[in-house]
Amino acid sequence: MVILGGGFGGLVAAQTLKRASVEITLLDKRNFHLFQPLLYQVATGSLSPAEIAAPLRGILRHQKNVEVLLGEAVDIDPAAKQVILGDGGVFPYDSLIIATGSQTSYYGKDQWRENAPSLKSVEEALAMRHKLLYAFERAERAESEEEARAWLNFVIVGAGATGLELAGALAEIAHHTLKHDFRRIQPHEARIILMEGGPRVLSNYPEDLSAKAVEQLKTLNVEVMLGAFVTGIEHDEIHYKHGEVSGSIPARTVFWAGGVTATPFARKVAERLQAETDRNGRFKVNPDLTVPGHPEIFVVGDLALSLDDKGRPLPGVAQVAIQGGRYAANVIKARLKGKTLPPFKYFDKGDMAVIGRAAAVANIFGLHVSGFLAWFIWVFIHLVYIVEFQSRILVMIDWGFLYLTFSRRARLITGELTPDRPLQEE
Amino acid sequence: MVILGGGFGGLVAAQTLKRASVEITLLDKRNFHLFQPLLYQVATGSLSPAEIAAPLRGILRHQKNVEVLLGEAVDIDPAAKQVILGDGGVFPYDSLIIATGSQTSYYGKDQWRENAPSLKSVEEALAMRHKLLYAFERAERAESEEEARAWLNFVIVGAGATGLELAGALAEIAHHTLKHDFRRIQPHEARIILMEGGPRVLSNYPEDLSAKAVEQLKTLNVEVMLGAFVTGIEHDEIHYKHGEVSGSIPARTVFWAGGVTATPFARKVAERLQAETDRNGRFKVNPDLTVPGHPEIFVVGDLALSLDDKGRPLPGVAQVAIQGGRYAANVIKARLKGKTLPPFKYFDKGDMAVIGRAAAVANIFGLHVSGFLAWFIWVFIHLVYIVEFQSRILVMIDWGFLYLTFSRRARLITGELTPDRPLQEE
Repeated sequence: MVILGGGFGGLVAAQTLKRASVEITLLDKRNFHLFQPLLYQVATGSLSPAEIAAPLRGILRHQKNVEVLLGEAVDIDPAAKQVILGDGGVFPYDSLIIATGSQTSYYGKDQWRENAPSLKSVEEALAMRHKLLYAFERAERAESEEEARAWLNFVIVGAGATGLELAGALAEIAHHTLKHDFRRIQPHEARIILMEGGPRVLSNYPEDLSAKAVEQLKTLNVEVMLGAFVTGIEHDEIHYKHGEVSGSIPARTVFWAGGVTATPFARKVAERLQAETDRNGRFKVNPDLTVPGHPEIFVVGDLALSLDDKGRPLPGVAQVAIQGGRYAANVIKARLKGKTLPPFKYFDKGDMAVIGRAAAVANIFGLHVSGFLAWFIWVFIHLVYIVEFQSRILVMIDWGFLYLTFSRRARLITGELTPDRPLQEE
Repeated sequence: MVILGGGFGGLVAAQTLKRASVEITLLDKRNFHLFQPLLYQVATGSLSPAEIAAPLRGILRHQKNVEVLLGEAVDIDPAAKQVILGDGGVFPYDSLIIATGSQTSYYGKDQWRENAPSLKSVEEALAMRHKLLYAFERAERAESEEEARAWLNFVIVGAGATGLELAGALAEIAHHTLKHDFRRIQPHEARIILMEGGPRVLSNYPEDLSAKAVEQLKTLNVEVMLGAFVTGIEHDEIHYKHGEVSGSIPARTVFWAGGVTATPFARKVAERLQAETDRNGRFKVNPDLTVPGHPEIFVVGDLALSLDDKGRPLPGVAQVAIQGGRYAANVIKARLKGKTLPPFKYFDKGDMAVIGRAAAVANIFGLHVSGFLAWFIWVFIHLVYIVEFQSRILVMIDWGFLYLTFSRRARLITGELTPDRPLQEE
């Protein structure tokens, strides 16, 4: 059988099949499993990529029925039961678990991507880190107040969990981490603006937690703009509409924390399988997570549209992917024994969003928690979940230092985007 | 005054001037100081970039007479006493310390760079990491023995300290780290070939240590080819001449650990100052490290050609840069008080090259050490020297794990070079 994707869903599926008599091929276009919930900490210079990633081969080295392969699936042939790779490779399957995840959606405005990067991959996180640290460097060298101002305005679009995490971390960088680092500018004069089209932050959380989150954001000097729809993003300005009023903010640094959508691969698969999808390209799966008409093909994680007890779609979070991956693997195991399983049922352990140091909101089994306690629970849970033992220790030390000193070790400006490029673009 | 470059020489110069009544501008095209001697560990997946780098602003945040600026110097105007940046910025100086270092030399064959990356920057280290890990991935997916062979042949050109470090680390990866990770290939069947044009490895070390190093390389299954000159590097083959005999090795992964040369900026400066340089572009400096005819301009580190007691040029190592940077700063301090200093004298603490786990050679104050003891001294010295306290703890933990388990946490394939690119190039 073939598993596509080594994220939470795919990896757990492979591990659940450890003792089953199946030959598994796990395909991913990356050689590592990424602990995506902490990616914003790479973007904001607290952690290094290797601290939140673990090589898939390393994790599965002793599971002899798994073969890990590096390659990107671009198509499938459901009649021949084959996965087709970008380099022409072909892999036959009897069962197939599709766990390839989603990509960022710019709501049809893909031209915004250039000026407003998003946060899905390690590369994007490093590009974001580059962009935000570079902004302070350029502000320090600015020739006018006005120019410095545009470099010190940071706008984050989208007030879901990722938007809050980025806004909170940026505020801490400006107010604490870089406090003594500059001679001409005052980093704490940076404005961090969180822009959201909806009426509240964390729209899928209970309302009281949204309110608590806004309180905590304000304590951190994050400006929250609700009901503001982005209408344009240029390299030095962002335009929005707020009810009837149009406005703009001069800002050189805009980050996109909007929604997600299906990848081109997922759309092609849907077409091949004539599968029904929602407007974000999510597969309307059967109660056993298979694609209607294709009992051998499972879709799990961000790409699956499964519903909870109340008929609401499950969110695109790690827990849904993990439980989905485990369920699909268990169905395959049951089938080997000629058995069937009851439908997939998501066990909701709750949601949490972290805003900053000792600032978070959490909804755990219906219990609403905020502030230090929510943050403490968040830290604990995340440390426990990080896959590799060694990374966990390192992350703990990094976080310990960050907590005590506000320093961020991983404040490196690296990569493609050379310091000179933004200048030449002007 | 202006200091160009935040490497060992430039950073130490700035720090030495801490209590002097000078206004210092430290310019670097990177925002961090890099502990270059450990860069090969980033390339071979033991460490993350942030573990061997520290933001310059962070290091110098409390030294109020230093202003750190991100920018790339491209020219100087010695008459107007100005440094000119790539983006048009201009910085006046009264004193100038040039500590911009060197770049890799392909001995006039720059077309080799594409197929044989070298190891000077964080980006190059990550590209190297990508290339070597990717080779094993491709070998696993190869369709013929022959194809797999070419992916499992690794050639390192140049048997100086960097070449030995890379060869030793590669051998450990093949024989230990990846031992259980693959299903079709045997990583330990990888051939690691160290190719050197000269008659021995570590040519600037005492002969007995060169011999000891070769012994240790052989224990690690590294093949050492001496007296072999590279004549061509293609994407899947390397050609060489060994005396009268021409040969070639099918190899998809070639790393360049050859010599260094001056950067275009340094050559332009030499021209502007009408300064004499050697064939590698190093400045023939006065005994006080100033450029003849320009007592206000110092050159330190890789870019300076200074001689030791016996008239031999000092090597391009961290210690020479550190001592040169400190000396130049002290000359400037002395001048402020109307004093002069005796000529620069390099205090040689010795050389060491590490080959692998418990394998190294060292020449310390004339004492020749090899094996475990040399390695132990190397580990100790490097831990002590790493700039930031926090990084030191993390590196220690990473090394501890590496030593105990042979695991390498930072085995991520990231960046530009996508998995598909090498395929499309074929």
